[in-house]
Amino acid sequence: MKGLVVMTFCFFLLLVASPSALASRKSSKYPKPCKQIVLYYHDILFGRTRNILSNSTSYRITNATNLGNYQFGSLIIFDDPITKDENLRSPPVAAAQGLYVYDMRTDYSTFFAFSLIFNSTEHKGTINIMGSDPLGAPTRDLSVVGGTGDFFMARGIVTFTTEAIESIEYFRLKMDIKLYECY
Amino acid sequence: MKGLVVMTFCFFLLLVASPSALASRKSSKYPKPCKQIVLYYHDILFGRTRNILSNSTSYRITNATNLGNYQFGSLIIFDDPITKDENLRSPPVAAAQGLYVYDMRTDYSTFFAFSLIFNSTEHKGTINIMGSDPLGAPTRDLSVVGGTGDFFMARGIVTFTTEAIESIEYFRLKMDIKLYECY
Amino acid sequence: MKGLVVMTFCFFLLLVASPSALASRKSSKYPKPCKQIVLYYHDILFGRTRNILSNSTSYRITNATNLGNYQFGSLIIFDDPITKDENLRSPPVAAAQGLYVYDMRTDYSTFFAFSLIFNSTEHKGTINIMGSDPLGAPTRDLSVVGGTGDFFMARGIVTFTTEAIESIEYFRLKMDIKLYECY
Repeated sequence: MKGLVVMTFCFFLLLVASPSALASRKSSKYPKPCKQIVLYYHDILFGRTRNILSNSTSYRITNATNLGNYQFGSLIIFDDPITKDENLRSPPVAAAQGLYVYDMRTDYSTFFAFSLIFNSTEHKGTINIMGSDPLGAPTRDLSVVGGTGDFFMARGIVTFTTEAIESIEYFRLKMDIKLYECY
Repeated sequence: MKGLVVMTFCFFLLLVASPSALASRKSSKYPKPCKQIVLYYHDILFGRTRNILSNSTSYRITNATNLGNYQFGSLIIFDDPITKDENLRSPPVAAAQGLYVYDMRTDYSTFFAFSLIFNSTEHKGTINIMGSDPLGAPTRDLSVVGGTGDFFMARGIVTFTTEAIESIEYFRLKMDIKLYECY
Repeated sequence: MKGLVVMTFCFFLLLVASPSALASRKSSKYPKPCKQIVLYYHDILFGRTRNILSNSTSYRITNATNLGNYQFGSLIIFDDPITKDENLRSPPVAAAQGLYVYDMRTDYSTFFAFSLIFNSTEHKGTINIMGSDPLGAPTRDLSVVGGTGDFFMARGIVTFTTEAIESIEYFRLKMDIKLYECY
């Protein structure tokens, strides 16, 4: 009887110490994030038709190829403002810096690799993100592959939702950042 | 005596709860994967000499530089079919979308960053991969840095083996995907 | 009373088994690395003014755009020697192969994605690194997102410190590689 009590103690402690072991038993498909942040990402691509240079936050450095009709091969470098609400004019709380490239022959889809760089009173540090962003899907999951500073050694998922899109020259994404490994 | 029994219980439970702690004691060099998938990757580079555009699955978006004689600086964007067997004509079970770049001065070697995108009855989700691929080595290990959907938060190793190579315009890789962290 | 002793035993064992749980209680901000390596990174960018091709270790494959005055959009492919001391002429112990791109509108900053490739008697394998490198900051942290061979499944932080910089055609970085997850 006492042995059972002891085992129960140990088991309880183990559960506390290894939350990931619990994940598959929870009713939800995924474990609960250890940290969650929702932010908005604004990309204004420099183009000949409308956006002027002083407003632009990204630039196409290679032209689309003629492989398919979906901008395949177009490589964009960006330094995009990140805000806490949907308003492009709100003070940025972070910057997203890196690249995306159109890489699908049969539809619009991009591959992203970038850093989210925080330098505010609330957060200092970076979150490094990589993954595929098929523009037509209602939501898309990318990987948080690492972090630094306040996000030291973070791992997780970023869910992109397109909130606005105007041709290929402006889009706004909702980024739901869920970290499942925090230090 | 009872204390010893209790310690043994606890220790047993800890072993169950932290498999990675055991890894270094196993006779094999590496732990056993929690998931393993073998797939075949086909890349048909668009070129002037042979491949026509409608067959091509990848495109060189920057020319090789004159730094060395091994295509240094040539950046390729790809949307490559992934099959369960070696046959290029088999129905694809996934797509590999992203980029690779020739980045060695003294031999053929590339750096890859891409997503494996599954959308079949068997698997839905992505595996995000990054690493170096020195073409001359019999096998090459790249890193699985994250995953989504069925591969939620995955980490692991992908071992590339070249199965066929025809100049720089077609190659087929065997990809042995071994995940060591699964949720 | 005996229950308390048992709980203490279990708790002690749990601490031993899950060092990360302890991290936040330590006096240091971060846990102790399971492996640490300090290396030096040398980049000689091919340019028209000074460096000749035979000396160069990196090449700009796209020109800077006119978005800002900080080389925005300039994409560099590199195969850079890594030495154990600060001397460029020392025998390399590894190579850094991959890409960086200038991606800030208002200052010099780059995004890196590359492999550190070791093939010496001391180390065999790769360390895969991604992250932001704002050149003006005294130190910058990037993410180790994976590793292979001797660095199987590694994760950690690489801290860059600029040791020398001569225009944009040569720079030397001190790389303090701290792995916090080792197998």
